[in-house]
Amino acid sequence: MKIFLAQQNYHIGNFEHNTAKIIEAIKEAKHHNVDLLVFSELCICGYPPRDFVDFKDFIDKCFQAIDAIKPYTDEIGVIVGAPDRNGAIEGKDLFNSAFLIYQQKIQGIAHKTCLPTYDVFDENRYFEPAFNWNVIEFKGKRLAITVCEDIWNLGHNPLYRVCPMDKLMEQKPDIMINISASPFDYTHDEDRKATIKSNVIKYNLPLFYCNGVGSQTEIVFDGASLIFDREGNLCKQLPQFIEAIDGVELNDDGTIDEPVIEPAVANAYSLLEPEHLSETLNIPQIHDAIILGITDYFGKMGFTKAIIGSSGGIDSAVTLALACKALGAENVTAVLLPSEYSSTHSVTDAEQLSITLGNLYHIVPIKTVYNSFLTLLKPIFKDLPFSLAEENIQSRIRGNILMAMANKFNYILLNTSNKSELATGYGTLYGDMAGGLGVLGDCYKLQIYELAKYINTSKEIIPLNIIDKAPSAELRPDQKDSDSLPSYDILDKILYQYIERLQGPAQIKALGYESHLVDGILKMVNANEYKRNQFCPIIRVSPKAFGVGRRVPIVAKYLG
Amino acid sequence: MKIFLAQQNYHIGNFEHNTAKIIEAIKEAKHHNVDLLVFSELCICGYPPRDFVDFKDFIDKCFQAIDAIKPYTDEIGVIVGAPDRNGAIEGKDLFNSAFLIYQQKIQGIAHKTCLPTYDVFDENRYFEPAFNWNVIEFKGKRLAITVCEDIWNLGHNPLYRVCPMDKLMEQKPDIMINISASPFDYTHDEDRKATIKSNVIKYNLPLFYCNGVGSQTEIVFDGASLIFDREGNLCKQLPQFIEAIDGVELNDDGTIDEPVIEPAVANAYSLLEPEHLSETLNIPQIHDAIILGITDYFGKMGFTKAIIGSSGGIDSAVTLALACKALGAENVTAVLLPSEYSSTHSVTDAEQLSITLGNLYHIVPIKTVYNSFLTLLKPIFKDLPFSLAEENIQSRIRGNILMAMANKFNYILLNTSNKSELATGYGTLYGDMAGGLGVLGDCYKLQIYELAKYINTSKEIIPLNIIDKAPSAELRPDQKDSDSLPSYDILDKILYQYIERLQGPAQIKALGYESHLVDGILKMVNANEYKRNQFCPIIRVSPKAFGVGRRVPIVAKYLG
Repeated sequence: MKIFLAQQNYHIGNFEHNTAKIIEAIKEAKHHNVDLLVFSELCICGYPPRDFVDFKDFIDKCFQAIDAIKPYTDEIGVIVGAPDRNGAIEGKDLFNSAFLIYQQKIQGIAHKTCLPTYDVFDENRYFEPAFNWNVIEFKGKRLAITVCEDIWNLGHNPLYRVCPMDKLMEQKPDIMINISASPFDYTHDEDRKATIKSNVIKYNLPLFYCNGVGSQTEIVFDGASLIFDREGNLCKQLPQFIEAIDGVELNDDGTIDEPVIEPAVANAYSLLEPEHLSETLNIPQIHDAIILGITDYFGKMGFTKAIIGSSGGIDSAVTLALACKALGAENVTAVLLPSEYSSTHSVTDAEQLSITLGNLYHIVPIKTVYNSFLTLLKPIFKDLPFSLAEENIQSRIRGNILMAMANKFNYILLNTSNKSELATGYGTLYGDMAGGLGVLGDCYKLQIYELAKYINTSKEIIPLNIIDKAPSAELRPDQKDSDSLPSYDILDKILYQYIERLQGPAQIKALGYESHLVDGILKMVNANEYKRNQFCPIIRVSPKAFGVGRRVPIVAKYLG
Repeated sequence: MKIFLAQQNYHIGNFEHNTAKIIEAIKEAKHHNVDLLVFSELCICGYPPRDFVDFKDFIDKCFQAIDAIKPYTDEIGVIVGAPDRNGAIEGKDLFNSAFLIYQQKIQGIAHKTCLPTYDVFDENRYFEPAFNWNVIEFKGKRLAITVCEDIWNLGHNPLYRVCPMDKLMEQKPDIMINISASPFDYTHDEDRKATIKSNVIKYNLPLFYCNGVGSQTEIVFDGASLIFDREGNLCKQLPQFIEAIDGVELNDDGTIDEPVIEPAVANAYSLLEPEHLSETLNIPQIHDAIILGITDYFGKMGFTKAIIGSSGGIDSAVTLALACKALGAENVTAVLLPSEYSSTHSVTDAEQLSITLGNLYHIVPIKTVYNSFLTLLKPIFKDLPFSLAEENIQSRIRGNILMAMANKFNYILLNTSNKSELATGYGTLYGDMAGGLGVLGDCYKLQIYELAKYINTSKEIIPLNIIDKAPSAELRPDQKDSDSLPSYDILDKILYQYIERLQGPAQIKALGYESHLVDGILKMVNANEYKRNQFCPIIRVSPKAFGVGRRVPIVAKYLG
């Protein structure tokens, strides 16, 4: 039996687009004489559809899309993901389901049991978990079809009380098929392979795993669909971050005649662990995920052109380089907005960067506008000393100029804030925190230096001076980040323990960090929730990004 | 048996504060010879604690707080809400629980079964549902203790597959006790009484219902705790929107010797239903909820002073009046920021308002700053016609001035945007959409007119000219809202059907609205998700507010 996987990039709620893509893949698979073609989770509507599924109209459109696909299934079995209605009186009204369509009919439907409701996931908000389980017959084989999280309930402390594959095994299936929408983060590629292999070993069955690809607002899906034979050998791995359709011939005895792939050994170090020990931090993968995040944000929103405030600092430099790569330098405009506190090298470095990248740039000094604000506010501010207010006025003037140009020329402002400053509140709301998409908001400063080096691998794209100089907001004379913040080498590691590792103050101090430093940093993180709450979506590359996956009360007093 | 309810206002994560409050109430109850004192859901940590419960440190602190309460329970039983650890290997690691403490010991723990995971609720994100149920004995009575949503699983299409009171009835309880954190909206007071009465009728037991009070960022809890006797008579109703401790003597046969309260008949009309029919829209309750929302935001964040951009329009007028009532006029500063497009009456009306309210106000004309922006941008904008860019520059200058004053004097900027404009995207990001708290963001324009009239009940606080004039953003010559938007009388009703009632386009058109109007409005709502995503928290007064309770993809194409 020839089984192929179609990892595709869907547009949420765009049924016409998604259905056309699915039909196109079916046609291509037919050319390869494929018996069974597997798509990803909720491919019909795109994942995650969020509260759209609360609309009857939206669910009706999902069923209409399935009907539109049926005529193409005379000679080929197709597994698609879509919401299904729950016929039972009790419980939520929808399931998250896999539909096997063949010979123009729905041959069987498998509902998802393990509904992820943590981090960026809200599935229990919408769906009822499956409460009975059946294999689905196809061409004489018994398929155990599961959806994404269903095969992740392993380990010594499983999150769910029911393991659907255990239930399905009672019916002696021949093949495991899993349709997924499993987001990228820099640990995920390894976790995924290990988890899928564990299932193969546990159940002694081949496993066909199809994951979606593409970025959906903040969440990047990386594809990398997999096929394992029943011995636990990886037989096929679809590429990461791009669409693909591929598969294997599965022999009757569950074996697969393909050369075994040795999974690539990941770049197993971490800048963020105290001892650079256990975590993986895959800079090339992070780079590619961000590129896809930018490309899909623009493509799916119908935009082509970006604008970026280019300060001569490393964050805006890396953002600009990534934007030029994602959108083409001809679609990116940089604006240098020097103030009286900007150093000369800020302008020259930023100019050099744009010259190298080949993008359009403007220099718009903000001094005259800044002075007009000071004059206007003089009767109110009187002779009060220079303070945060004046710093923020400058930053917000820049935000206003960038947004005005964006509005005038139909650009999207890309935000350059990094995770370290978002965590500590070291940024100005409506100023440098403005923008439509946070390109680097899930990368700590240390990671941004690594990204800069990676971008410079074969050529000095980002001027070395930008990488080497001390970070500064340049909003008052001789300001340095280190005036207000601990060194990033310490700050980032403490933040990482708190944010990604969910370690409390005592646990972090036990790693050897100074008590007042830990308390001060954790307090800053919690006190600045109000700022992050008004921040744009951030391209997620870590297991715990700010935004939809991290939900912390704004009005609270914990560790503060 | 004397049973009292303590409805209190907690501070999330502020264990010291919450524990002190709880102990204070226990001491007061002892003076009244109370046998059993019932607190609200998760009172130990405050509700909703959100991702704070992911920290072991946070859960440890909950148990430490319970230990601190134990010494006060020698002569009085106390029921408090707190997270409990799940000892089972499978499933999430926490329960949302009620602890009965008496004679310095935990006498029993009841876990919540029905975990709301919709709208503003995320409980399945954190908690495992109960999977066994036991009454807890106290002074010879068998208590059926449930938590909030546990008693809401009624009706013809229940949301949960298990109804915990059905399970508890197998053990023949004598008394139902429900601890809640059940948020206010303008339909909730009636729903709550009806639901609790339905439980009493169904199970034929008296019910003691204790709800929390106070605002937590965007969610307002209104208290209004209730005691019903076994016949379904309302015997005690604690006040709405304020703290209280009160109760009754429950006779051995389950009767209560208190005069029966006739539930107040609600103001049963709606501005928003096409025929002003079925919905309740309780303007006085909405008013009080917003006042509490403002008061608690400031009190719990440690702020005292507010700043508001006062345009002479109705939204800023109502916001200013509410802020003065909540914080005291001496703590509120209004700033009039006229541009060359502002009409004379805008300034005079706004001045009159502040004179009546007695708050400080400044007039800061933005023309000089606006001209400095135009001069600066001239080389880039060249001779392109006046457009949205110039409109937004003005709005963002105002945002910058208001934030600069807020930063300088430690004010919090209150936002004045209404739900109609947030829905349609009729506002400027970083301009009039700036601020720390959205006072009117859950009120449609029609409701704001009603609020203005209510504020003017006994005296003309808001100048009638502000109520009577046609709404305008005044960002270009002779601009009116009606240039860009349908009349609010139609717009608001269509928005209400889509947002609160989750009706799709076909259903809304079937109500008699023009097809192109419905399609246009729904498209605007979906297309402007990116703006609302960067908006501040909104005080929630409706069953479906923008913000944490409404989660819609930004990058999508549904009804667009």
